[in-house]
Amino acid sequence: MTKKIILDCDPGHDDAVALLLAHGNPEIELLAVTTVVGNQTLPKVTHNALSVARVAGITGVPFAAGASRPLVRDIEVAPDIHGESGLDGPVLPEPTIELDPRHAIDLIIDTIMAHEPGTVTLVPTGGLTNIAMAARKEPRIVERVKEVVLMGGGYHVGNWSAVAEFNIKIDPEAAHIVFNESWPVVMVGLDLTHQALATDEVAAQIAAVGTKPAKFVGELLDFFALAYKDAQGFTAPPVHDPCAVAYVIDPTIVKTVKVPIDIELTGTLTLGMTVADFRAAAPEDCNTWAATELDAPRFWNLVTEALENIGEVDF
Amino acid sequence: MTKKIILDCDPGHDDAVALLLAHGNPEIELLAVTTVVGNQTLPKVTHNALSVARVAGITGVPFAAGASRPLVRDIEVAPDIHGESGLDGPVLPEPTIELDPRHAIDLIIDTIMAHEPGTVTLVPTGGLTNIAMAARKEPRIVERVKEVVLMGGGYHVGNWSAVAEFNIKIDPEAAHIVFNESWPVVMVGLDLTHQALATDEVAAQIAAVGTKPAKFVGELLDFFALAYKDAQGFTAPPVHDPCAVAYVIDPTIVKTVKVPIDIELTGTLTLGMTVADFRAAAPEDCNTWAATELDAPRFWNLVTEALENIGEVDF
Amino acid sequence: MTKKIILDCDPGHDDAVALLLAHGNPEIELLAVTTVVGNQTLPKVTHNALSVARVAGITGVPFAAGASRPLVRDIEVAPDIHGESGLDGPVLPEPTIELDPRHAIDLIIDTIMAHEPGTVTLVPTGGLTNIAMAARKEPRIVERVKEVVLMGGGYHVGNWSAVAEFNIKIDPEAAHIVFNESWPVVMVGLDLTHQALATDEVAAQIAAVGTKPAKFVGELLDFFALAYKDAQGFTAPPVHDPCAVAYVIDPTIVKTVKVPIDIELTGTLTLGMTVADFRAAAPEDCNTWAATELDAPRFWNLVTEALENIGEVDF
Amino acid sequence: MTKKIILDCDPGHDDAVALLLAHGNPEIELLAVTTVVGNQTLPKVTHNALSVARVAGITGVPFAAGASRPLVRDIEVAPDIHGESGLDGPVLPEPTIELDPRHAIDLIIDTIMAHEPGTVTLVPTGGLTNIAMAARKEPRIVERVKEVVLMGGGYHVGNWSAVAEFNIKIDPEAAHIVFNESWPVVMVGLDLTHQALATDEVAAQIAAVGTKPAKFVGELLDFFALAYKDAQGFTAPPVHDPCAVAYVIDPTIVKTVKVPIDIELTGTLTLGMTVADFRAAAPEDCNTWAATELDAPRFWNLVTEALENIGEVDF
Repeated sequence: MTKKIILDCDPGHDDAVALLLAHGNPEIELLAVTTVVGNQTLPKVTHNALSVARVAGITGVPFAAGASRPLVRDIEVAPDIHGESGLDGPVLPEPTIELDPRHAIDLIIDTIMAHEPGTVTLVPTGGLTNIAMAARKEPRIVERVKEVVLMGGGYHVGNWSAVAEFNIKIDPEAAHIVFNESWPVVMVGLDLTHQALATDEVAAQIAAVGTKPAKFVGELLDFFALAYKDAQGFTAPPVHDPCAVAYVIDPTIVKTVKVPIDIELTGTLTLGMTVADFRAAAPEDCNTWAATELDAPRFWNLVTEALENIGEVDF
Repeated sequence: MTKKIILDCDPGHDDAVALLLAHGNPEIELLAVTTVVGNQTLPKVTHNALSVARVAGITGVPFAAGASRPLVRDIEVAPDIHGESGLDGPVLPEPTIELDPRHAIDLIIDTIMAHEPGTVTLVPTGGLTNIAMAARKEPRIVERVKEVVLMGGGYHVGNWSAVAEFNIKIDPEAAHIVFNESWPVVMVGLDLTHQALATDEVAAQIAAVGTKPAKFVGELLDFFALAYKDAQGFTAPPVHDPCAVAYVIDPTIVKTVKVPIDIELTGTLTLGMTVADFRAAAPEDCNTWAATELDAPRFWNLVTEALENIGEVDF
Repeated sequence: MTKKIILDCDPGHDDAVALLLAHGNPEIELLAVTTVVGNQTLPKVTHNALSVARVAGITGVPFAAGASRPLVRDIEVAPDIHGESGLDGPVLPEPTIELDPRHAIDLIIDTIMAHEPGTVTLVPTGGLTNIAMAARKEPRIVERVKEVVLMGGGYHVGNWSAVAEFNIKIDPEAAHIVFNESWPVVMVGLDLTHQALATDEVAAQIAAVGTKPAKFVGELLDFFALAYKDAQGFTAPPVHDPCAVAYVIDPTIVKTVKVPIDIELTGTLTLGMTVADFRAAAPEDCNTWAATELDAPRFWNLVTEALENIGEVDF
Repeated sequence: MTKKIILDCDPGHDDAVALLLAHGNPEIELLAVTTVVGNQTLPKVTHNALSVARVAGITGVPFAAGASRPLVRDIEVAPDIHGESGLDGPVLPEPTIELDPRHAIDLIIDTIMAHEPGTVTLVPTGGLTNIAMAARKEPRIVERVKEVVLMGGGYHVGNWSAVAEFNIKIDPEAAHIVFNESWPVVMVGLDLTHQALATDEVAAQIAAVGTKPAKFVGELLDFFALAYKDAQGFTAPPVHDPCAVAYVIDPTIVKTVKVPIDIELTGTLTLGMTVADFRAAAPEDCNTWAATELDAPRFWNLVTEALENIGEVDF
């Protein structure tokens, strides 16, 4: 049985890879793609999502634009990591599919309510504004969703402050909403994604696929590598977002631990920290998990296989 | 030309009077009524709104239910002020109109977008969850709304803490969103509404109308008087919410001053305070006003006249 | 019986007037003067205190320097109000008395412990760093002090932010310590001191004394008037600090109300606010009072009489 | 050349071991011992310090009592870890030495100022109230101290909340003061001290010394083992405080990394967290180090050798 997911994203280089992985993997049924301000402004990331859809040859999947700004905080974007377009590097083809007229939060709600309870997984790879607003507009989705597998946060690692990660810090109130609802939340954070490094070997493996989509990914990773080296001193860039998709595909690739996690909203130095309490075993009713360990070779094999499955696309 | 308003409320004794005032005053065109958790839970305040619609003889106006909980904080209701039903005192008639199927935030958005820019006034008399979510879901309403005239806050007076008022404190993040958008915001706060006391003279004036709706209001005020005496030591209860409607009807009844106002989100003692900065003249681009002085006799005359205009209603 | 006080100050124009009032009033016995960073740096305000001692002809009173910075926050001084010297305007005579070798907090502690319990009043007119540290170093002073009559804070007025006053905001943690100890605290805040305006009539009354100290005060007030006009738009400058001394001399000149007051330490907009809770009558064990109403003519008469009592001083 | 230290402590089982290690190690010259509220109330920990001095045979070293409560926060003690006495387990001998009459902060200041600059190391193993107050009372000690080697905090581990350690959390403002001064601060936190486990092998090694002081330590560790097992699920208790002394004796036993560390003062979930920023290499002017790795066998050998050096003591 396939895994039905809604991908809520802000492409974003790693979001693009996540989308390609979700589309190319046979275990995933991509029900909808929604966009949210984050790595770049909403118009840019939405255009990028549609461009990547063309690159991947995605048709028949609704794409909808969502929140153009965080709930409470001012907009922060990340041009130093993703460039001015949000997807700098390759030439982006013009989109060939049209946006769904609905707001992302309505598409999310409609999609969840249209499927059997317990069958739809939310995979947010950007700020959590859309997910939080959907949960507040239609509280029944919380019990109906199978789980929320999100890229964001980190229990021992930060990148947007000493202890906070970008996706959480840009809308900490939204994150607080999502982590405090009763649905299962799997936090695929920096502790995990910093193990998903696109090394030269990885780049070679992807290049060997030999298709235009694979070349597109190669160009994304080339830009990403330079940006991460300049901005954060990485020797190989961490490709965060597809890790969340990989967990949905095969949880044995991403080890997790059940641990209470909450979001800091008032800290001067710690705003947006995903505070995990490892002091004791998680209580029975704990609904949050933190990803700890990645089987990197199998992860990259998943990505490569997805590109092989997608095959050649003309764009 | 009439003033078009959307009343977003959580009836609530004073919300009920606000609704009667809005319906009975010939200058107000009531476009829609939306409900939000606050004085009581969403099911209760929504039922109350529909009951009051029957009392007032309102037909042809869409009513829609909205947020069942605040954005970030846990639910707080006020049974000590409004009773278990949210509208204790009179016998509530069963509603005769049906709820609009839309979520309140969609009814708000649709209504604003369906009218000419600058013609619709939002009158929130509860927590600001619906208004905030509407502004985030459809940012274009912010420029399109004429103004937001809200009951809430207070620059020198608190009731839910030393310095915070109930409607703001129960959802301070929503208030932060509303006060920081670029639309004009008129804060009709406790400084003003504590001048709208339902004294014995006021009660007599309303009773003299002699209709069933007037009797209904009288019974509301009787309960309200006892609750406010017990809970906060008032000798006559402050009838907050119709003050906001009165300002829309006739701004000469409610004096205001232009002053920067923002919402405190991290204070230990001051969470939800509407911080007004009176130190200097407000800058040109200041979009917030605070209500300062009520012409109480004319205010109560407006309420009485509205009841006279409504006339007898059989419920 | 005279009132024994320790004046803890940061002269500062109004601190200088407070010192002259304390010295010149026959009801006050000035046990010690201590200085604290505030209106200017510690070396400057300490020098100023000693200069004013010469102006006033004070001898036999120990003066000691205290904290050179707040407990936790960075130093903030107020040159826009008090000039670069902290006492701009008149020519300052070189001091003729020497500093006590003790740290201010030790002089405070020693003085309190050397007098009978319940006889010494602390009169802080600057930040509360010294007082807080003294209370922490020797907790027994808390029960031994008669009361703390401080200039600072304000329940409805701020000057260093919308809702916070300078003396409290520059060291809010120290203020939190002082307000939360069990000694009686009388807050002579901006609500009161903005009634102590040095109008032209006041200036004339002081000038009429005709002595060199009176002329010195006149020059202080001239500078202060210009500074307050430029910085905060006042038509006549509020002379804050002597109001606290006036209360000690004659409490009928400064009306107070018993009300719980606490200090906000985490507010984004409200840091250092003196949060007073007027919602209900103060509980029995409430140990804080707020000054509300000044008898301005009698206040200025006290100041004038003190200058007359000081008489001519050659400096 | 010996290392001169002032030990500021709140015995406390591990403080007692730290004191024995400092006294018994020939490289350490113990200049003074000061006490501070923490593991138990000030009277209790002060009594305990004097008792341990008798156990260790310490004479000629001044002991002084310091702060009886934190700067701003209410007192918190840790009876679940240290028992009602603060040093439950062995029978405590009555002290035979008297307290120095000075307050701890004066003893600290006097001692530092009496020695050559750069020769005295402060070793706080409790809350930082005394150290912070000393630095505020006499700012010159900051440049004069060689370094502050403190037990407290943790960059990835908490014990008094999910992310905060007891010594820091009980007086976070004091910790903020200490970490933000310009002296070198070495944070020997839980990341390190959770490697200093008193296993059965360790207990046997200590027991083999065969003296009364060694037996006393054995009884301390027995109680400590039970308390840590019950309260925090440890199979062997972490003996925190002597790790700081061990670092002073031989820095090769405790690896450290230079990293900016600051104290969170406003976090709801993170109050008192020692926020370390590992994202980039520490800047040149960074004055904080975090201990990362313990050579546990050599550490325990140090403790054992100190007991051997102390030899038999009759108490």
